[in-house]
Amino acid sequence: MRENFELWGYSEIRTPTFEYFESLATGTGSELQESMFRFKDKGGRLLALRAEMTSPIARVVATKLRSHPLPMRMYYLANMFRYEEPQSGRQREFWHAGIELVGSSLPDADAEVIAVFITTLSGIGLRGVSVELGHVGLFKSIVEEAGISLDEAAAIRRSIDKKDMAGLEAALKEVDVSSGMKDVFRLLPKLRGDIDVTRKILDRVENENVEACIQNLSDIVKILKLYDLDSVIEVDLGIVRGIDYYTGAVFEGFVPDLGIALGGGGRYDGLVEQFGGEYFPATGFAIGVDRCHLALEKQGFKFPMESRPQILVQHTDQKLKGEAIKLAMKLRECGMSTETDIMERRLRKALEHASKRGIPYVVIVGRKEFEKGEVVVRNMEKEEQETVKIEDLKNYFTHK
Amino acid sequence: MRENFELWGYSEIRTPTFEYFESLATGTGSELQESMFRFKDKGGRLLALRAEMTSPIARVVATKLRSHPLPMRMYYLANMFRYEEPQSGRQREFWHAGIELVGSSLPDADAEVIAVFITTLSGIGLRGVSVELGHVGLFKSIVEEAGISLDEAAAIRRSIDKKDMAGLEAALKEVDVSSGMKDVFRLLPKLRGDIDVTRKILDRVENENVEACIQNLSDIVKILKLYDLDSVIEVDLGIVRGIDYYTGAVFEGFVPDLGIALGGGGRYDGLVEQFGGEYFPATGFAIGVDRCHLALEKQGFKFPMESRPQILVQHTDQKLKGEAIKLAMKLRECGMSTETDIMERRLRKALEHASKRGIPYVVIVGRKEFEKGEVVVRNMEKEEQETVKIEDLKNYFTHK
Repeated sequence: MRENFELWGYSEIRTPTFEYFESLATGTGSELQESMFRFKDKGGRLLALRAEMTSPIARVVATKLRSHPLPMRMYYLANMFRYEEPQSGRQREFWHAGIELVGSSLPDADAEVIAVFITTLSGIGLRGVSVELGHVGLFKSIVEEAGISLDEAAAIRRSIDKKDMAGLEAALKEVDVSSGMKDVFRLLPKLRGDIDVTRKILDRVENENVEACIQNLSDIVKILKLYDLDSVIEVDLGIVRGIDYYTGAVFEGFVPDLGIALGGGGRYDGLVEQFGGEYFPATGFAIGVDRCHLALEKQGFKFPMESRPQILVQHTDQKLKGEAIKLAMKLRECGMSTETDIMERRLRKALEHASKRGIPYVVIVGRKEFEKGEVVVRNMEKEEQETVKIEDLKNYFTHK
Repeated sequence: MRENFELWGYSEIRTPTFEYFESLATGTGSELQESMFRFKDKGGRLLALRAEMTSPIARVVATKLRSHPLPMRMYYLANMFRYEEPQSGRQREFWHAGIELVGSSLPDADAEVIAVFITTLSGIGLRGVSVELGHVGLFKSIVEEAGISLDEAAAIRRSIDKKDMAGLEAALKEVDVSSGMKDVFRLLPKLRGDIDVTRKILDRVENENVEACIQNLSDIVKILKLYDLDSVIEVDLGIVRGIDYYTGAVFEGFVPDLGIALGGGGRYDGLVEQFGGEYFPATGFAIGVDRCHLALEKQGFKFPMESRPQILVQHTDQKLKGEAIKLAMKLRECGMSTETDIMERRLRKALEHASKRGIPYVVIVGRKEFEKGEVVVRNMEKEEQETVKIEDLKNYFTHK
């Protein structure tokens, strides 16, 4: 993931693990705030562990980075903390890999972020990655057209986000909205497919902002076509994301093997300003690293085994300990991961140990060979051994 | 640091950022416990942010790893949290790089850990690394010989650890100890040099445990001679370390440019048992990564600049945006960090931007050249440009 982010010109940013609660809470909404681990320091100040990275980065953009040339491309690999019921792929401490692209309000920026998202997921070996693309700005414009406030529409948004149709009906009962507009809300989670599904909104709603949002979505899809990525994108107007700060195009990523999103993101143009900075348009995403592990496992991906040394250098005589130590130091200088014996094991026990641990080579330092400037190298897998001149040892291993 | 740990056959271990306070506190002593950020979760359980890694790893050894073949070699690179007055090289969140070597009670294990410590500090480019070697077991044996408890000796230990001679006098007034033994305590911080300084203890104290500890120290120094590292080691019986769990040889590392230790460690044979596990002998160290940064800066080390892309692909015509995007994708596939324009900049502005950011190459996609299968590559530093066939672009950059 790091490699892909850097190939796209993104630089790593690190922020503190805990900050003032008030700062971490900015722009996030009550649901996320409720999930934050909060505590007071000895000075009585309310702190919290970070639950996501977009707000902390927006704070840094508003302060330390406010004069940095635009666009700013930043990435992070960091642990997050949420007090929620632990579920598969989501413990209370979990890792996010993500990017933020600050400074461009053009659909080119949205498309780039989605392209980085897809190439990152595919790049780690995931098969069948797909992205569902929605638009929070469109949802907000529809709410505006319906004549209610965003607060009044919160339950509607939450139900649509969770695809909870019964919840949506209940939420719609609570608001004073025309039955035509209620139908539009009911329609949103059903509008999935190519960009033409947006026509069904245009047929029912006449509103400049709604039209502009649909145009924006259409522009993003066009640019994704230039990336040859339009085939993995599906428009899904039911994607409205749970965090408050989103303002424009939003998206989530999936593979067929996992029933939950691997990650998601979108545009959050107003957030930096909320930290007392200037207005900066911005978009980004976060990928759940643990969920990716889970998905890779389900796809049969073989993770590398526990790392282990390549070589054990075993002396057969206490007097040869110094020679074994010096030989090991030389092998490390040649880049070989090497252990020596610190258990005073006899050779037979040492070979048993190497076999159990899966260490592929044992270099045996014995008196007789050593006096001739030689050691015995045992290939544990083949159960073969040969005598090698100490001066040839580097060559012996680098040509393996 | 990671590279060196792996060359010595150590594998990475990760533990949670927060745990039950009771668990993190095990074996650490009141000073460290006081510095922990503590908080309650919604279930009322007392949690804390980790302040060091040895206790969490001992817990894992006592539980999940209790049947793992010995020795176990583990390393970590992790952030720690302590509520202390922030000082140079020590913020309230800071990074530790360290190892734990579990399963050997032999001096070979102590010597290996010190050798990894020294080669890690030298390996990152620090000059003039030295290690001061003490022995908490020796201190504890002297306390035993003096006829007081370890609790009664706590203030003495703290004063010696901080080289606070006035504090030591005050602490000695509080305990019922013979004047001869008080002199031994006064002597400890002054005994620095080669292993022969320990004679001054042997001349004054006749105690089996004291003799065994000095023999142990002498054995460790002998093995460090086999590593050719004895020249950077100084015995310093005033090194008694602040954390309770230490039981044997302990050490701290320094460079002349920084007045505080870069890190330290030692043997902690009883700790794993305190987590309800079996008895495991163990030793290890932690290096303060931020302090190493500081020391490297003071030694004039030049840290790499902020990472930046090598190439900006700039289209000169909206119609060529797709070609620029595809060219950038190809350059990324060849391992080149590449940006495209998402600001709709004109060429002149784009070149200014690349210059300000220090991007070394701009690939200009223009209509006329593109129709001939070519692009213009501008070398920003030399202020030169040349026309390059698109099919040769990979070669052009990989031979730079």
